[in-house]
Amino acid sequence: MRVTRQFRGPCTSSTIGLFLLFAASSGQAQGIDRLTGYTAQATEAELRAEEVIQSVPSPEMFGKHLLHLTEEPHPTGSQRNMELADYVRDRFAEYGLQDVRFHDTPALLSYGRSASVELLEPIQMVLALEEDPYPEDKDSYLYSDGGVVPYHEYAASGDVTAEVVYANSGSPEDFAILDEMGVSVEGKIVIMRYSVPYSYRGYKVFMAESRGAVGVIIYSDPQDDGYAKGEVYPDGPWGPPSHIQWGSIVYDWFGFGITPFTFHWKQAADGTWVEGPERDPQLPKIPSIPMSYRDAAEILSRLRGPVVPAEWQGGLPFTYHVGPGPSKIRLRIENEDTVRTMRNVVAVIPGSDEPERWVIAGNHRDAWIYGAKDPSSGTASLLEAARALGTAVEQGFRPKRTIVFANWDAEEDLLGGSTSWVKDHREKLVNDGVLYINLDSSAAGPDFHGGATPALADFLREVTQAVEHPDGAGSVYDHWASRYADGVPEVETIVGATDYTAFQENVGMSCIDMYSDGPYGVYHSQYDNYFWMSRIADPGFQYNTYMSRLLAVILWRMANAEILPLRSSAYALAVIDHLGEIEDKAAPLQAISLVAAREAAQQWLAAAEAFEAQLDRKLASESDIPPETAKEVNQLLMGVERAMTEPSGLESRPFFKHLIYAPQPTYRKEVLPRIFEAIDSGAWEEIPAFERQLVEAFDHAADLLQRATTLIR
Amino acid sequence: MRVTRQFRGPCTSSTIGLFLLFAASSGQAQGIDRLTGYTAQATEAELRAEEVIQSVPSPEMFGKHLLHLTEEPHPTGSQRNMELADYVRDRFAEYGLQDVRFHDTPALLSYGRSASVELLEPIQMVLALEEDPYPEDKDSYLYSDGGVVPYHEYAASGDVTAEVVYANSGSPEDFAILDEMGVSVEGKIVIMRYSVPYSYRGYKVFMAESRGAVGVIIYSDPQDDGYAKGEVYPDGPWGPPSHIQWGSIVYDWFGFGITPFTFHWKQAADGTWVEGPERDPQLPKIPSIPMSYRDAAEILSRLRGPVVPAEWQGGLPFTYHVGPGPSKIRLRIENEDTVRTMRNVVAVIPGSDEPERWVIAGNHRDAWIYGAKDPSSGTASLLEAARALGTAVEQGFRPKRTIVFANWDAEEDLLGGSTSWVKDHREKLVNDGVLYINLDSSAAGPDFHGGATPALADFLREVTQAVEHPDGAGSVYDHWASRYADGVPEVETIVGATDYTAFQENVGMSCIDMYSDGPYGVYHSQYDNYFWMSRIADPGFQYNTYMSRLLAVILWRMANAEILPLRSSAYALAVIDHLGEIEDKAAPLQAISLVAAREAAQQWLAAAEAFEAQLDRKLASESDIPPETAKEVNQLLMGVERAMTEPSGLESRPFFKHLIYAPQPTYRKEVLPRIFEAIDSGAWEEIPAFERQLVEAFDHAADLLQRATTLIR
Repeated sequence: MRVTRQFRGPCTSSTIGLFLLFAASSGQAQGIDRLTGYTAQATEAELRAEEVIQSVPSPEMFGKHLLHLTEEPHPTGSQRNMELADYVRDRFAEYGLQDVRFHDTPALLSYGRSASVELLEPIQMVLALEEDPYPEDKDSYLYSDGGVVPYHEYAASGDVTAEVVYANSGSPEDFAILDEMGVSVEGKIVIMRYSVPYSYRGYKVFMAESRGAVGVIIYSDPQDDGYAKGEVYPDGPWGPPSHIQWGSIVYDWFGFGITPFTFHWKQAADGTWVEGPERDPQLPKIPSIPMSYRDAAEILSRLRGPVVPAEWQGGLPFTYHVGPGPSKIRLRIENEDTVRTMRNVVAVIPGSDEPERWVIAGNHRDAWIYGAKDPSSGTASLLEAARALGTAVEQGFRPKRTIVFANWDAEEDLLGGSTSWVKDHREKLVNDGVLYINLDSSAAGPDFHGGATPALADFLREVTQAVEHPDGAGSVYDHWASRYADGVPEVETIVGATDYTAFQENVGMSCIDMYSDGPYGVYHSQYDNYFWMSRIADPGFQYNTYMSRLLAVILWRMANAEILPLRSSAYALAVIDHLGEIEDKAAPLQAISLVAAREAAQQWLAAAEAFEAQLDRKLASESDIPPETAKEVNQLLMGVERAMTEPSGLESRPFFKHLIYAPQPTYRKEVLPRIFEAIDSGAWEEIPAFERQLVEAFDHAADLLQRATTLIR
Repeated sequence: MRVTRQFRGPCTSSTIGLFLLFAASSGQAQGIDRLTGYTAQATEAELRAEEVIQSVPSPEMFGKHLLHLTEEPHPTGSQRNMELADYVRDRFAEYGLQDVRFHDTPALLSYGRSASVELLEPIQMVLALEEDPYPEDKDSYLYSDGGVVPYHEYAASGDVTAEVVYANSGSPEDFAILDEMGVSVEGKIVIMRYSVPYSYRGYKVFMAESRGAVGVIIYSDPQDDGYAKGEVYPDGPWGPPSHIQWGSIVYDWFGFGITPFTFHWKQAADGTWVEGPERDPQLPKIPSIPMSYRDAAEILSRLRGPVVPAEWQGGLPFTYHVGPGPSKIRLRIENEDTVRTMRNVVAVIPGSDEPERWVIAGNHRDAWIYGAKDPSSGTASLLEAARALGTAVEQGFRPKRTIVFANWDAEEDLLGGSTSWVKDHREKLVNDGVLYINLDSSAAGPDFHGGATPALADFLREVTQAVEHPDGAGSVYDHWASRYADGVPEVETIVGATDYTAFQENVGMSCIDMYSDGPYGVYHSQYDNYFWMSRIADPGFQYNTYMSRLLAVILWRMANAEILPLRSSAYALAVIDHLGEIEDKAAPLQAISLVAAREAAQQWLAAAEAFEAQLDRKLASESDIPPETAKEVNQLLMGVERAMTEPSGLESRPFFKHLIYAPQPTYRKEVLPRIFEAIDSGAWEEIPAFERQLVEAFDHAADLLQRATTLIR
């Protein structure tokens, strides 16, 4: 049990230290208490509001929300998830948010109806496909009534019998090793492990399918999230022998954001949904099922053939073999596809000075099962942040810009809720979207992780200094920084995988994605529940409460900054690094030298540095910037982020319009995606055009910044 | 099964390539076929002899020796090991070696008479302490008659009952982590894993004993040498669930080479040996026993207390805990101490030109059980090398220098045979010892590993080019080099641990220690037997046979070189590196700067380079160096190695007289041991005197080399 500590308020000595740090690093005179983008006077006002805001979120209220949210399974399209939409709507309204509304969109969803896996050779055995109940946890009896089966959403239904091949984590590199070994998966059932660090499960299935496999099993290896990592549930946070990671395996890279969320299903005249003749390419053609390591051990321990390469050996107590066979299994799956409604809940706190500009916070509500960490900790934190800001408003504070709270649906299935909302509000977001901050899960432990588009990295480092870390070692920033040898915490690169994807990748908005991490081996299983969160991961809910505070402060601070704290110089520096990375990627195949792009990025950097220096002088020396000027400068700064997109998108994935970042289908990072993909496909001749596109974007960014500098001269 | 290939003879194109390589690297004109230390003419003669020598060793004869040597367990002091001494003596004599004789010394030995481990809490269970028999292997029934117990030699007999604490690999760092955790081992039984890479088991026991533990268990974790590494015996080379690593745990650092091998036992007037009143400090005071992972799992899986740090988690299928308890065990051990005879077998091939100078090859004969790899593969290879050189002599070839073959006893117990022989021949070795090459085990797979005092590194790289590797990828050198990214194979630093210890550390002789490595999980268990070697590790004995050839060629080439191929420049360079290492070691505590030593080492380097350049010119241009001059130069070169010792030895370990290398008690590397230990003990004030000692040594080395240069001007 962790000791519950009294919250000490936002303005600690470490916070002051931070102001000095940032002032110094931006060429300022020392000793000025000023938030980035604020004058000293505005800083004072902001900190008064933040004090009120930070005093609101409480572990008790967080726990109350969490208990309600996790009482029953609530996947997308379930009755319970609709009821929780009502709960969120009612809380938003209760906290004084305005314009509270649902945003509904139909989507094809898929539910597991039956599944069985039978080992036929070398012995006969029916595998359990169930998670064990534990008497101390009332929510661990999900499988007891017999109606629940673990499943991979969108897997094809089917009944296949074949020998098994083990393909490690199913990455492209792993399949290349199988090729080298001369082991084919054609006609086989491929068993793979979930990856730690995360690699998208859908791409594993696709790799197997495209090589002729007839079925797939993905299991959780104890080396990755079970006993080899530490104490397992119910004694600890790691995955017990029977835990099963559910999940979607949609092949989203074949049409994400472009095709309807209903895929090949069409609405008939009577309003009913009918399956079209041809299965959408985003939907797998073979059956696939997730599995516990207890079940998987029965198959893996009986494989023979070559011994695996050293890195493929997992934590089960035998030597792993590749196969094929003699383990032979029959895999039967029935998944039901059906069109249902995705329901987002959205509400606002209207802004006073720039009401048209939106600072948006989002979190999804749908859960695979109870989803205590993923996503209900995020939902509960979002509600606490809404309550905090609502309280501030009630006490007479007003944000300059409009703050939007969004609770998404269908993230787990197909990033559906957030993407549909972005599509429906695209023009508005392109014009007026200031920030999107995502809180998928909130906290499962003490370790803050923040990812952001590069211009927001310094802002994130600054704002984390305003919130006390519950472990008593100072601010969240201090705790975060203490985990780095050089004392400078890393703001991670974000490229897509959760609900910020459409905001960053399609609109070109500045985004933050953050969470407070801890040991977590029950992802997407029935054990990610209230017991797990309240007894094991965050007893006392202190970590989740600091995250609620932090979210509230970020929103308020971003909504009130006179000049948006977007540090474009950091963006340009990141891009210069990426140019080197992409040259390195090409080098083993063909030397490329992106001289023109680097030159343009340097110009962008110079313009950004000039602007930032000028802005610091301005904000330090004057009490205010005329509101109309500030508004115009902010428009230009938002334009810099937008300049990093182009209208046509990636050739094979037109929804992805960002010039600097995209996710690979595995969700690995892809920088400068057009050139990245040209290298991969050998389309070297296209690189010059892509480089020109970058040059134009960087020139445009530099131009915007020069205009901004002129405005505040 | 590996394909048996026809041996193609020594002088392949890659061999020629090597000569060019070495000629080029030493500033020579190109195109001269010359071995280092040889004129072109002498090279020709040498290669003719080597062709004969290489044609002799055969897999058939190797296998015949191995079968005989491994037919029964043959630990030191056993009747069988005495019979095998006769076998070796008879073979030496049969092969035409001269002056074949035994060298006998009494030593205290210890044998396991009974042992039991009983789990008392949380359940009651008697552990097996036996290795499983496998019907396909007649030698796997060692424990079937009930008379054999696994044991740690020299462990105290005792009967102790206590809770258990897990201390990972029992290194000083591991015990420091236990301290940080606040977990004491006082009054406990400590269970530790054997270390991979190797760390001396005796020091693990000492660490536990000195912290008040009442007993020790050391087990083989499957992550280190069992199923997690690959296929286990009898299907593969790794350790099966019941395998047990026997071994000595003598605390040798408390008196090695100084106290009698009989420790505190004295010979009475009637010749019998009687135990003295006080147990020698080299002998443990607590009971200790080795254990299989199958037995250890019963204890470890029932420990609670803190979860282990991530690196302490092993390959057993549960989360490891530190304890103490609730696992509680009763450990009963009865070991019998008794004085018996260590018997070395030594024989020579007398030299023609410098008969007083000795080129020595050694291997030990005593085995924990059957010892197919360790050491019988080495013994069989030594016999094949003796047969090869004997054949050459029979055909009229004569070595310039005397070649000594030694088959040691009691290596496993206390490095007893080799150390006693060195002590009895110390003056002779100081004056005339040219080289000691050790072959503890010969081959368990394809991967050549060579360690040497630095002056021999280039020689080892050169001579490995003369022998074909059986995997068909060229020479042993080619295969060795192919395992390094830069194509330059690493000659490992050797500091002690097997029979070269006394030669290098006490006498200051140039040494080589080599083996051909492969997966090996049955070290010191009953499974290291003929079945394992002939069916799994080296079917067809091709790897062991190339090692026999290589050993024979090394001996002959070293015995015949006109000028000894000791490259002192490499030694000086290694020492300059070590000076940096030791400064780095000190840096976190106190800055030291060994400027004077570095300056002296640079002078030594310059003198060495001048000598080597002059020598290359000389050997390249002239047909011969007058024998008397060569002899004098060689004496100076041997003197350089001797210059790296000083008479008093390390303060706490006076037998260790080497200035550059020593083993730590864990057998980790200790460079510049006097300064190394001064840093560890905080005796900073002693460092200047130790540095002056180094300066003198390096100055002396430089002086010897300058004199050598003058001789060949």
